Amino acid sequence: MDFNNNELVEKITKIIIQKLQEEKEVLIPIGISNRHIHLCEEDFKILFGKDKSLSKLKDLKQPGQYAANECVTIKGPKGELKKVRILGPLRNETQIEISVSDGFKLGVNPPIKESGNLKDTPGIEIIGPKGKVTKEKGVICALRHIHMSPSDAKKMNVCDKDIVNVEIDGIRKAILGNVLVRVSENFKLEMHLDMDEANSCLIKNNDLVKIVENR
Amino acid sequence: MDFNNNELVEKITKIIIQKLQEEKEVLIPIGISNRHIHLCEEDFKILFGKDKSLSKLKDLKQPGQYAANECVTIKGPKGELKKVRILGPLRNETQIEISVSDGFKLGVNPPIKESGNLKDTPGIEIIGPKGKVTKEKGVICALRHIHMSPSDAKKMNVCDKDIVNVEIDGIRKAILGNVLVRVSENFKLEMHLDMDEANSCLIKNNDLVKIVENR
Repeated sequence: MDFNNNELVEKITKIIIQKLQEEKEVLIPIGISNRHIHLCEEDFKILFGKDKSLSKLKDLKQPGQYAANECVTIKGPKGELKKVRILGPLRNETQIEISVSDGFKLGVNPPIKESGNLKDTPGIEIIGPKGKVTKEKGVICALRHIHMSPSDAKKMNVCDKDIVNVEIDGIRKAILGNVLVRVSENFKLEMHLDMDEANSCLIKNNDLVKIVENR
Repeated sequence: MDFNNNELVEKITKIIIQKLQEEKEVLIPIGISNRHIHLCEEDFKILFGKDKSLSKLKDLKQPGQYAANECVTIKGPKGELKKVRILGPLRNETQIEISVSDGFKLGVNPPIKESGNLKDTPGIEIIGPKGKVTKEKGVICALRHIHMSPSDAKKMNVCDKDIVNVEIDGIRKAILGNVLVRVSENFKLEMHLDMDEANSCLIKNNDLVKIVENR
């Protein structure tokens, strides 16, 4: 090899720097979602009483979103889950997000869905300290997804609603497919997985993953 | 393009044949393992009494292996799990196989390990109808693995103890890495996953998966 070939050295250097930059850019922190519920105002008032307001326990990573102090019990045909935390603020529609294993315990079989898409979803009974609500629909298993800002999206060369693959390292390494990209000025970079997904890959909050090419 | 270029034609033909052969690849049925326990004779006698024998509920897919009628409770520092099924026949050493989520409930943090390798594993209390045993070690989360015969191994071009990647299709599609291949005349073709892994990929017993190349 001719080590005096400046053009070649320059080319290699450029490729290496580019690869290193790519490595730096694409790392996405994981946020693990335990089962939780988003309530509409009407349901909240029935469950907790007319004069009660949702109160903040702690902020979540996505701006404006928070874990509330208030919890409910959800009850399906086969069993119930207590202490299901409400995430605030209140929404236009009540939505219950559980894992596939939660579904087996409750006796419901929710589809894997994007948040907000409640068509053809099973219902459930919600029990609060002041009342009960029987929902006809609203239970989903969340589709794996990544929240990111437009600037993150640009760096990773993806667009809102893209479906990507994500590589997870470690003894239970995996490439997860069908991961939905959501882009908004309001989003902070974070990939959401549920407890089944996190445990199956032995992944913890804030572990780093990256988008990889389709095979 | 020069269609008289024999070398090129030969090369393309070879690639097409290779691809067609790959398509024929062997599909591997999934067997989902719920938490279970293998007992040594000494522990079995303490838990169930000197005169009791392990009795078969049903055969498992791997020849000679069976689910027993007998179950135990396992108890860790944080909680217990009842009705943990014994898999027979009795073994030389007691081994408890749980999922990562089971580990959280029990308050133990077992390593991801190949069956039979109990070095540096946490212990647990086992409770039977006639007595208790406190194990100093023996709890593992099973390493993903595939059982196969030498003839299956030949078809798939893998050897005993190879580590492969396995592709799972569907809405929660994934490529799982670090999958151990175990080859024996006594084995029937089957990939074992635990409940966390099955639920995270929305996979059921007897669903079919395949070995894919390393990226």
